[in-house]
Amino acid sequence: MLKKILICTCVLLGAYTHAQKDEAVIKSIYKASLTNGKSYDWLNYLSNQIGSRLSGSLGAERAVEYTKEELGNLGLDKVWLQPVMVPKWVRGAKEYAYIETVPGKTTTVNICALGGSVATPSLGIKAQVVEVHDFEELEALGKEMVEGKIVFFNRPMQADLIQTFEAYSGCVNQRYEGAVQASKFGAVGVIVRSMNLRLDDLPHTGSMTYNDLPLESRIPSAAISTNDAEVLSTMLQLDKNIKLYFKTNCKQLKDVLSYNVIGEITGSEFPNEYMLVGGHLDSWDLGDGSHDDGAGVVQSMEVLRLFKTLGINPKRSIRVVLFMNEENGLRGGNKYSEEAEQKGETHVFALESDSGGFTPRGFHFNCSEANYQQALSWQELFKPYLIHYFEKGYAGADVRPLKSKDNVLVGLVPDSQRYFDHHHASTDTFDAVNKRELELGAATMTSLVYLFDKYGIQ
Amino acid sequence: MLKKILICTCVLLGAYTHAQKDEAVIKSIYKASLTNGKSYDWLNYLSNQIGSRLSGSLGAERAVEYTKEELGNLGLDKVWLQPVMVPKWVRGAKEYAYIETVPGKTTTVNICALGGSVATPSLGIKAQVVEVHDFEELEALGKEMVEGKIVFFNRPMQADLIQTFEAYSGCVNQRYEGAVQASKFGAVGVIVRSMNLRLDDLPHTGSMTYNDLPLESRIPSAAISTNDAEVLSTMLQLDKNIKLYFKTNCKQLKDVLSYNVIGEITGSEFPNEYMLVGGHLDSWDLGDGSHDDGAGVVQSMEVLRLFKTLGINPKRSIRVVLFMNEENGLRGGNKYSEEAEQKGETHVFALESDSGGFTPRGFHFNCSEANYQQALSWQELFKPYLIHYFEKGYAGADVRPLKSKDNVLVGLVPDSQRYFDHHHASTDTFDAVNKRELELGAATMTSLVYLFDKYGIQ
Repeated sequence: MLKKILICTCVLLGAYTHAQKDEAVIKSIYKASLTNGKSYDWLNYLSNQIGSRLSGSLGAERAVEYTKEELGNLGLDKVWLQPVMVPKWVRGAKEYAYIETVPGKTTTVNICALGGSVATPSLGIKAQVVEVHDFEELEALGKEMVEGKIVFFNRPMQADLIQTFEAYSGCVNQRYEGAVQASKFGAVGVIVRSMNLRLDDLPHTGSMTYNDLPLESRIPSAAISTNDAEVLSTMLQLDKNIKLYFKTNCKQLKDVLSYNVIGEITGSEFPNEYMLVGGHLDSWDLGDGSHDDGAGVVQSMEVLRLFKTLGINPKRSIRVVLFMNEENGLRGGNKYSEEAEQKGETHVFALESDSGGFTPRGFHFNCSEANYQQALSWQELFKPYLIHYFEKGYAGADVRPLKSKDNVLVGLVPDSQRYFDHHHASTDTFDAVNKRELELGAATMTSLVYLFDKYGIQ
Repeated sequence: MLKKILICTCVLLGAYTHAQKDEAVIKSIYKASLTNGKSYDWLNYLSNQIGSRLSGSLGAERAVEYTKEELGNLGLDKVWLQPVMVPKWVRGAKEYAYIETVPGKTTTVNICALGGSVATPSLGIKAQVVEVHDFEELEALGKEMVEGKIVFFNRPMQADLIQTFEAYSGCVNQRYEGAVQASKFGAVGVIVRSMNLRLDDLPHTGSMTYNDLPLESRIPSAAISTNDAEVLSTMLQLDKNIKLYFKTNCKQLKDVLSYNVIGEITGSEFPNEYMLVGGHLDSWDLGDGSHDDGAGVVQSMEVLRLFKTLGINPKRSIRVVLFMNEENGLRGGNKYSEEAEQKGETHVFALESDSGGFTPRGFHFNCSEANYQQALSWQELFKPYLIHYFEKGYAGADVRPLKSKDNVLVGLVPDSQRYFDHHHASTDTFDAVNKRELELGAATMTSLVYLFDKYGIQ
């Protein structure tokens, strides 16, 4: 009996000591990120010295060079580039649009071409507008009402959803598939209300598809600012015969060579088990991509820097992957996963940060119940850092192809209220990122990687 | 036995139905705030049409009129003004300061007078500078090293504290009492590092005291931007004989008449039990006081508007109080509490919002264990709104005088990471407030008032 008590006491004491040590390590991680972090300086360079980084652009190329060089300075075990062919879409000259109420009487509105769209003819398009809120409404109108017109998708993001990503999911099919649906009924163009919860003058771009539509059926597609969507809608209520003119100058060029940027700390016990942290290096072209996803890039780099600087030697190999082309193709994410499979690399864990550099609130877990329960058991360790949100959910687009039956995919979940004010718009800039919020995110990611490495995947 | 089971089932069913109803009411509160809220429009007016509202200023006077009128439009049972004499301090012309390394060689630095400070002589002050980090260091230097010099308090806010208000508490005595301490040793002026966690060029004002120092011992006191504090400190390390020149033009005038603005929905069952929600109407003069505390003002007004618009009839009397003069005197808070005591009004609950209009995270409770436990029992109801922080703590300056043994004081706790970027600085402006974050705060306050009114104070 005494022996049993002793063993029991030892186990409890052991667990207690472990917990104490974890508490101390996590404290040191947050302290290092908040007082001597590099993430904000890196982001400053990416945003203000390089700027926007659309796949195939000079900015993307420079970002590859810069981040490879910076990773090279961290004393990692390996740093390399993984080649990947990416689409190259260019916006061309700034877009122009106006509403014409009577011939000669016009009101300018703010639009931008959607990524992947074809351009309007060089003289632009002028046509009557038909406003719809979803594909069912479009179908009900049918060819008779739609042919020769511009389809205006005007379903707003739902303001009473607390998680703004849910509001986004509820709307984004208009942007992504609007052109495919509208062209079925002979529309000549598509205008989509920007995916933005607030009313302002900024058009928000984003990707769209033509699926396998033949070239001649591809109609130009653009986003309109929320304020102007309201104006257009109001004018249509007054007079359904008003016309919209718009001109876009974008072009899809041939695919070009680009790279995922990868760095690794090789694991001391299980070097062939990989734990990945990552964000995407490419961005849209209107802002400088500070939140989407400069933040995720520099936070992911910071995870490995913190491991090195704090002397935490992981048992498993920790990789940072800066994915190319998340925005308009996901070629980087797919390529990474394909090569990992070819090489037989086992990715036991992958954590993506691609929801903005705002105050971190917690994580979305895509994993087994056992691993989820293990993560829940660490909640108390995160409480001092106000990390409280541990839910099952979507981890992110770039890590998704890595999903296996046994591994753990995680998405960092920052506060989402301001995200869509900036997302894919000209206001996604460095000044919209708060240094502390960014650094708290990096520390939160590092702490979770530390715990999963230490205690293993179930 | 059967009877017991039946009773038990009824009680459980009752509790279940109650919880369901609460869930529905709270959902309707959030929805109304996020989709048809008034708080953002009110704040727009307060910030952009009225602007800064320092006690005794025209802005403060107009804010009293405006908010009284707006409360008057809500169909409350009573709206009135409570007279209170407030101090009137004016900044005068913009301050000016430079570092002089050798005669004629100067570097301009950004300063602002602290609220309540006397001005420098009209020609300004030029003197050597002695840098200290706390009062102990000052005392150790003593009269010999301090007399005739400017004392430069340069203790930074601690970046590794997660809650930025703790970092503020750890520094603010330099600003508040610096002049009193420095004048003991014959200093001629005080310069304080701005209470700001980031490095930028903005001086942050705030209140300071002379206690009962005789007039002739009162030395001028100003804040310097964090960037310039770093410059000054670096220059002092290079040469301790450099001089600082500064000129301030502020003045303490006679007290003037102002008002707390009060509105009330009279309770249906316990009209003599008061539940208060409030923020302060006055602000500092450098920005427009959108976060501090325009946000708290409009959120508090919104609480009563939501009760009215959703047809929630409270059992207790709900009062909104927009306090005057929190920033430099607390005369409004004290006056309200004094009159409440004189009239024998029982305040069972008071909720203050004065920590910025950022995403709400939860509450600080200053109350009995029983009431705290009751609040904890409601955590699940708040979970869908990502409200997770239920801790004992400080509720706020304006409601503090109302504290009794039995009542519940609560402070709304928003995300604090960005707060001190704006606090008391020229960047505390409307554009720094996000509409959704503000509205979520108002809904969170309303939900808590609803629950405490329904279930009562323990």
